[in-house]
Amino acid sequence: DRPMTLFGGMNVLESRELALEVAEQYVEVTSRLGMPYVFKASFDKANRSSMHSYRGPGMEKGLEILAEIKSRFGVPIITDVHEPHQAAAVAEVADVIQLPAFLARQTDLVVAMARTGAVINVKKPQFLAPHEMRHIVAKCGEAGNDRILLCERGSSFGYNNLVVDMLGMAEMKDTGLPVLFDVTHSLQRPGGRADSAGGRREQVFDLARSGVALGLAGLFLEAHPDPDNAKCDGPCALPLDQLEPFLRQLQSLDSLVKGFAPLDIR
Amino acid sequence: DRPMTLFGGMNVLESRELALEVAEQYVEVTSRLGMPYVFKASFDKANRSSMHSYRGPGMEKGLEILAEIKSRFGVPIITDVHEPHQAAAVAEVADVIQLPAFLARQTDLVVAMARTGAVINVKKPQFLAPHEMRHIVAKCGEAGNDRILLCERGSSFGYNNLVVDMLGMAEMKDTGLPVLFDVTHSLQRPGGRADSAGGRREQVFDLARSGVALGLAGLFLEAHPDPDNAKCDGPCALPLDQLEPFLRQLQSLDSLVKGFAPLDIR
Amino acid sequence: DRPMTLFGGMNVLESRELALEVAEQYVEVTSRLGMPYVFKASFDKANRSSMHSYRGPGMEKGLEILAEIKSRFGVPIITDVHEPHQAAAVAEVADVIQLPAFLARQTDLVVAMARTGAVINVKKPQFLAPHEMRHIVAKCGEAGNDRILLCERGSSFGYNNLVVDMLGMAEMKDTGLPVLFDVTHSLQRPGGRADSAGGRREQVFDLARSGVALGLAGLFLEAHPDPDNAKCDGPCALPLDQLEPFLRQLQSLDSLVKGFAPLDIR
Amino acid sequence: DRPMTLFGGMNVLESRELALEVAEQYVEVTSRLGMPYVFKASFDKANRSSMHSYRGPGMEKGLEILAEIKSRFGVPIITDVHEPHQAAAVAEVADVIQLPAFLARQTDLVVAMARTGAVINVKKPQFLAPHEMRHIVAKCGEAGNDRILLCERGSSFGYNNLVVDMLGMAEMKDTGLPVLFDVTHSLQRPGGRADSAGGRREQVFDLARSGVALGLAGLFLEAHPDPDNAKCDGPCALPLDQLEPFLRQLQSLDSLVKGFAPLDIR
Repeated sequence: DRPMTLFGGMNVLESRELALEVAEQYVEVTSRLGMPYVFKASFDKANRSSMHSYRGPGMEKGLEILAEIKSRFGVPIITDVHEPHQAAAVAEVADVIQLPAFLARQTDLVVAMARTGAVINVKKPQFLAPHEMRHIVAKCGEAGNDRILLCERGSSFGYNNLVVDMLGMAEMKDTGLPVLFDVTHSLQRPGGRADSAGGRREQVFDLARSGVALGLAGLFLEAHPDPDNAKCDGPCALPLDQLEPFLRQLQSLDSLVKGFAPLDIR
Repeated sequence: DRPMTLFGGMNVLESRELALEVAEQYVEVTSRLGMPYVFKASFDKANRSSMHSYRGPGMEKGLEILAEIKSRFGVPIITDVHEPHQAAAVAEVADVIQLPAFLARQTDLVVAMARTGAVINVKKPQFLAPHEMRHIVAKCGEAGNDRILLCERGSSFGYNNLVVDMLGMAEMKDTGLPVLFDVTHSLQRPGGRADSAGGRREQVFDLARSGVALGLAGLFLEAHPDPDNAKCDGPCALPLDQLEPFLRQLQSLDSLVKGFAPLDIR
Repeated sequence: DRPMTLFGGMNVLESRELALEVAEQYVEVTSRLGMPYVFKASFDKANRSSMHSYRGPGMEKGLEILAEIKSRFGVPIITDVHEPHQAAAVAEVADVIQLPAFLARQTDLVVAMARTGAVINVKKPQFLAPHEMRHIVAKCGEAGNDRILLCERGSSFGYNNLVVDMLGMAEMKDTGLPVLFDVTHSLQRPGGRADSAGGRREQVFDLARSGVALGLAGLFLEAHPDPDNAKCDGPCALPLDQLEPFLRQLQSLDSLVKGFAPLDIR
Repeated sequence: DRPMTLFGGMNVLESRELALEVAEQYVEVTSRLGMPYVFKASFDKANRSSMHSYRGPGMEKGLEILAEIKSRFGVPIITDVHEPHQAAAVAEVADVIQLPAFLARQTDLVVAMARTGAVINVKKPQFLAPHEMRHIVAKCGEAGNDRILLCERGSSFGYNNLVVDMLGMAEMKDTGLPVLFDVTHSLQRPGGRADSAGGRREQVFDLARSGVALGLAGLFLEAHPDPDNAKCDGPCALPLDQLEPFLRQLQSLDSLVKGFAPLDIR
């Protein structure tokens, strides 16, 4: 059980400057901690509640920014793909391409992404049981790609609420595939604000601790220097100035639980 | 409150011959009943659990079959759209274009569909609260289209189960938009079979009665002459030979409840 | 399939006078409709959210009022039992004794109630699957009582919300036991007000129609002449002056669906 | 933040001998670990699915066994109360008296328990939102008792499944009251076996880690020397021979997280 990797960054690319600033912070902190790191940001938020909400710079401009971050800081990149025709272009820049939760069953998208040969991060849909993730994995495999990450981000619990089923997340580890925990989106309150999702960022450390205690391959995190003014999902974002103590403490937790002796329970 | 419209047909187009046979049956029965009718079939099942499952004839061939049904029987057509680039072509044949539940928040798809000017049937996502449907309606409106139908098809209830929230369906009527009830998909047991969804077709009449009793604009229904050998969602399909008694009795129910005097309850 | 029976009355006994007034109304309306009728009221609300909430007159005084209603109007009585020692006394007055939902698994209470020989109305707990009701029925049977009614009153759906699973209610009919639908409590929003449950009484007719359309043995209903000032569950109560049009229309619905020919769907 | 207390023992008292054996093991292990410890066992399982299931020795005999354990090992005792008349007798032996989840809203039981002056462990009902626990706390307070523990044991998630809402458990800490985590019952699959609940004991260490990572006042645990032959809830029980490595590792986790510096997130 190797130390967890951080898939961290920001929700949506706002400006090039801000992206560089955020990336720099992540790189500095993860370097100091010796924590494996992948930079995350989206070039398009394709399913905002409202048409008036900010969507991002788009694929072309967004990939430019991501490529700049990749070369300047020497870090791998993860970003999401929304339509089959985007997969190849995204995979030229991104090392890990992400299948969004709502789209995780769209066969054409899965196949187009699989064919790029990039590592694929499959977000578990809020409506799917953990054991059903194997269907998506099988689709990728049949398209020739078995470099899959599985990522928990909460399950629908009644209306306008999510719950993270820790037993389900642990169950996904039994696939043998690396399991990530997207703590930020798991904090969402869908439909919680007048025209966008709410969130519970004041509980981000609680939820992250609870997930990391399972011994995960990676943590997925979004932060922002000014969450109240973030252009998307600010209610869930970690304030960037808390990144170091946040990660440092989770790292010690990760290290502890990965040293645990397995119990013999049948 | 006008009599309900039937949006009925089959899950996926299998062969041209079968489609014509099914359409003919629906047309005959609804004609005898004087029930407004729209033929439904999908040209592509874009999110099957398994890659080995049948997806359909594809858009081009599928639209040909739908166009033939439309002209031969003189009935309007409803079918679903999966990617933005399909919207215009589909709207040339289909009178009502359908936004799939898992995709209902994809802004580009919503806008592309809205711009066709066709009537749009919005399937309510299994993860969405009824009151959040207004966001999707607003997106359509801002793209210049307010000819919207809202369609209930069940909400996630734990893993591998759906529940139809009748209070939520009734609440959607308060939008003033026509509300449909997709009784067939509401019978699904997601992940209920080894590599596809299960279903409870033996309860289709129960659930249809319960929904129609609310006084709806329309019922959405899939039938098949041989459900056990249907290529998709057979476990939920009405046996086609039961169509007439099924509809005849629901029609009398629809007629009864639409004659009800409103109560004065505040 | 005989016409449905109304188990109707008020939530909690407030004053003797009010109870008589409510009973009189129910008796008059159901007589005019020729609808079989059982009067319902609780002598104690044993699980209010707050200690400051009104609980009722208690068992002794409450049974006096119920006995008076029974003899004056010649109607059977249903009321609930909360502790084993109450069962025998309650069964001397009540024809149907009710097992509360939260208590439905308490073996001593079930056995004590079963031993009275009275008909038992088992409220389905909000946390129980329909198929698990057979365990409670079996307990009654082993205590020598198989005169059981099963009563749906909603299932937990996330926090602070209930949903009525119509498929589950229909499934309970397969036991062969009479199935009732408690429409009033199914309207609750648990924890919905500062110190008590909220409700959606403006939707009582919607939900009742949806349930009655299944063809049920009975409807369970609470009404109040002034719901806003009812001492318990006013947010769910039907205004008493709407009782006649409410029941008359449901009666026609019940009559219609009970005349339906069964479909042959396997 | 003091080190967590273990409320550990067995589900139901089977024989005096077994209870002594189990208690001895717990006492030895917790002594070696220096972990504060309270012995737990039930004298009656009052809500088994089936009447044929073992219920326990009853209150009188059960309290004798508990008293013997208390005096022989010098440990405090926790056990549950099912009816108001039992509260005083139980509180003479037990230091902590437990309010069962299904009964947690029964006012008479809450008041009777509160009046004993004993510490009360309130199990959170599977149907209750975390924020509603304050109503139960208020009832105890109004009966003169504010020595309350709050205990998470999972929430209904669809039928026949529970989920532990870690955010909700963390939220309960905001009351300022000690929060316990009943990991064993949270593993239940209600209705999961033909006539009793199933469970996932092979995941007990996963779930315990996830909960303890929040920094809790206590862990509630049931173990058995032979879980497959335990008379109640064996599918959830920790094999007793795994107790020491289980607790030792959780203790290091508890110690780590309680040393964490709080983050400044608003």
